[in-house]
Amino acid sequence: MSFAPLQNDTFLRACLRQATEHTPIWLMRQAGRYLPEYKATRAKAGSFMGLATNVDYATEVTLQPLERFPLDAAILFSDILTVPDAMGLGLTFALGEGPKFARHVRDEAAVDLLAVPDMDKLRYVFDAVTSIRRALNGRVPLIGFSGSPWTLACYMVEGGGSDDYRAVKTLMYSRPDLMHRILAINADAVAQYLNTQIEAGAQAVMVFDSWGGVLADGNFQDFSLAYTRRVLNQLKQEHNGARIPHIVFTKGGGLWLDDMNTLPCDVLGLDWTVNLSKARRQVGGDVGGPGKALQGNLDPNVLFAAPEQVATEAIRVLESFGLPHTDRSVPGPTHIFNLGHGISQFTPPEHVSALVEAVHNHSRQMRRMA
Amino acid sequence: MSFAPLQNDTFLRACLRQATEHTPIWLMRQAGRYLPEYKATRAKAGSFMGLATNVDYATEVTLQPLERFPLDAAILFSDILTVPDAMGLGLTFALGEGPKFARHVRDEAAVDLLAVPDMDKLRYVFDAVTSIRRALNGRVPLIGFSGSPWTLACYMVEGGGSDDYRAVKTLMYSRPDLMHRILAINADAVAQYLNTQIEAGAQAVMVFDSWGGVLADGNFQDFSLAYTRRVLNQLKQEHNGARIPHIVFTKGGGLWLDDMNTLPCDVLGLDWTVNLSKARRQVGGDVGGPGKALQGNLDPNVLFAAPEQVATEAIRVLESFGLPHTDRSVPGPTHIFNLGHGISQFTPPEHVSALVEAVHNHSRQMRRMA
Repeated sequence: MSFAPLQNDTFLRACLRQATEHTPIWLMRQAGRYLPEYKATRAKAGSFMGLATNVDYATEVTLQPLERFPLDAAILFSDILTVPDAMGLGLTFALGEGPKFARHVRDEAAVDLLAVPDMDKLRYVFDAVTSIRRALNGRVPLIGFSGSPWTLACYMVEGGGSDDYRAVKTLMYSRPDLMHRILAINADAVAQYLNTQIEAGAQAVMVFDSWGGVLADGNFQDFSLAYTRRVLNQLKQEHNGARIPHIVFTKGGGLWLDDMNTLPCDVLGLDWTVNLSKARRQVGGDVGGPGKALQGNLDPNVLFAAPEQVATEAIRVLESFGLPHTDRSVPGPTHIFNLGHGISQFTPPEHVSALVEAVHNHSRQMRRMA
Repeated sequence: MSFAPLQNDTFLRACLRQATEHTPIWLMRQAGRYLPEYKATRAKAGSFMGLATNVDYATEVTLQPLERFPLDAAILFSDILTVPDAMGLGLTFALGEGPKFARHVRDEAAVDLLAVPDMDKLRYVFDAVTSIRRALNGRVPLIGFSGSPWTLACYMVEGGGSDDYRAVKTLMYSRPDLMHRILAINADAVAQYLNTQIEAGAQAVMVFDSWGGVLADGNFQDFSLAYTRRVLNQLKQEHNGARIPHIVFTKGGGLWLDDMNTLPCDVLGLDWTVNLSKARRQVGGDVGGPGKALQGNLDPNVLFAAPEQVATEAIRVLESFGLPHTDRSVPGPTHIFNLGHGISQFTPPEHVSALVEAVHNHSRQMRRMA
């Protein structure tokens, strides 16, 4: 496969800790229900999975936010739970509710049935990646993604979302051996899944450890981080001569930044509870030395305030990270602007315009003032 | 008022960083739905508020867990939302659902109507405190409590629980002036409320900042911590010649331990994401020097595993804190065992027995081995 050359590589350079002219921005869940055009496509598709499994629809909604906002990256429209669905657990989304699995995994018999799925069952995802990459035509890079092994396990054991994680933690505390078996299978499946997305055209990949933050200290390291590492250790570093950055985001993982710093990945995503300035000192590295690029971390609820206040809060986040390094000859600390969680379905789209504009303008200004 | 002398002051001594023979233990929400005898009393009372506002019932359920388990403290049976209820917001609990307010506070007109309530409206709480203290007859100390100003504000603005805090954060980001007005009133109300509980017989008081952890870095300090400090600055340090320890628990506050260390309180509560050994180094202080006692931090979900596994995890928490100081002549680092959040209604009571026994036995053994 060959694709059009990239016109805006700001995001990819920032991922690799290379100096950029502005701070790139994209938003988790940037294609989604807050956009009326998304809702129109979803209505045509009939259901969430109808949307996600149809290459044309998935392509259409992935590009929608780029038509409105000068974002610096696109992210595959899909769901983090496609992998357990391909394992045969039967994923559905009832309207207005979260994901549900027809079967859950709570005992040894259910674990015995688990295996890394045939990647052919996820062909619709890889086809969507290729289709989106073509449709982007080099405008911005395309990010592929997956849920982390632990986050997938949460849904697989609970059978859906949870507010107390009782089922998955009961299994973890009473049968840690079974939990480790699930996580090992998930890790190998996620690695194959992300590698196949890379082959299909994804130019960066992100692991969403959405539920790592619910674990106790010690358990996070053993049941989440260890398996994210197992994924990363199997990932392609390059494809067709291009470096493929690897991003890891653990929601609620701020306490474990030192542990996460040991992961073989390029970028760490942070939620809004983290002080960016401290995080930069902790894991951002020095100019000329190794380190992690940082991605985040505006509270998505800021987008409910007026556009001027959105701009003020965006600037606060940029200033909290501080001036990214500007020496083009060496790597150094870089920042990718994002929310600290997915954008809310209730967000007014014009507030997103204000955000993107503020990030681009102010981050250019910071570099000029330097 | 005079009460029977205290027979077990282990908890109070540990709060004041004094050496104890064992690590005291009590559990957040220890009187509650996981106990069949609680359900029986609640059925008699008809509703949650019927239970909380009836002095005899509140006394009965507060003592129930002590009949089953040799816990080292009792905690007033009440709700964190009694104060906004007394402000006239109309608190109700539908069966199987969370709290709901009849009126919410989302605009200037609603804020204008807010004031520190007449403490007479909370007389049922103070009467319960005195009744429980009498019924305890010196067995263990009685803890009084309140929600933190920020946590109360979350419910007052949202009108109930929330999974995204959209309403309260929209107000905070768009009208910080109004949010500060709400928080100042809440802080002064909470201070009066806790001081009146102390006068009624509470021997320690705890501020539950249950939702502080949802705030962004920077906002936590301005909108939660500052008002918890305003409460603490007004609290009685002593009553009838006895020191009254002050406890602050911010769920999800582990990242801000250094900030919380500056609070004028005796004990900091921690959830399970925090490494107790690190927290001790950070805020526990040295033998002979100042510092905070630490309270926590077992994941309540551990209680769904088998009793032997519960014991193993409890020991892990004790060992993570390490040996508390043992010199009776000076203050030093101490640990109060607790969960990192309220006990689940689905907990098997016999697992709680295993927990209390393990904490008492192992913590005595640690001291003997020293």
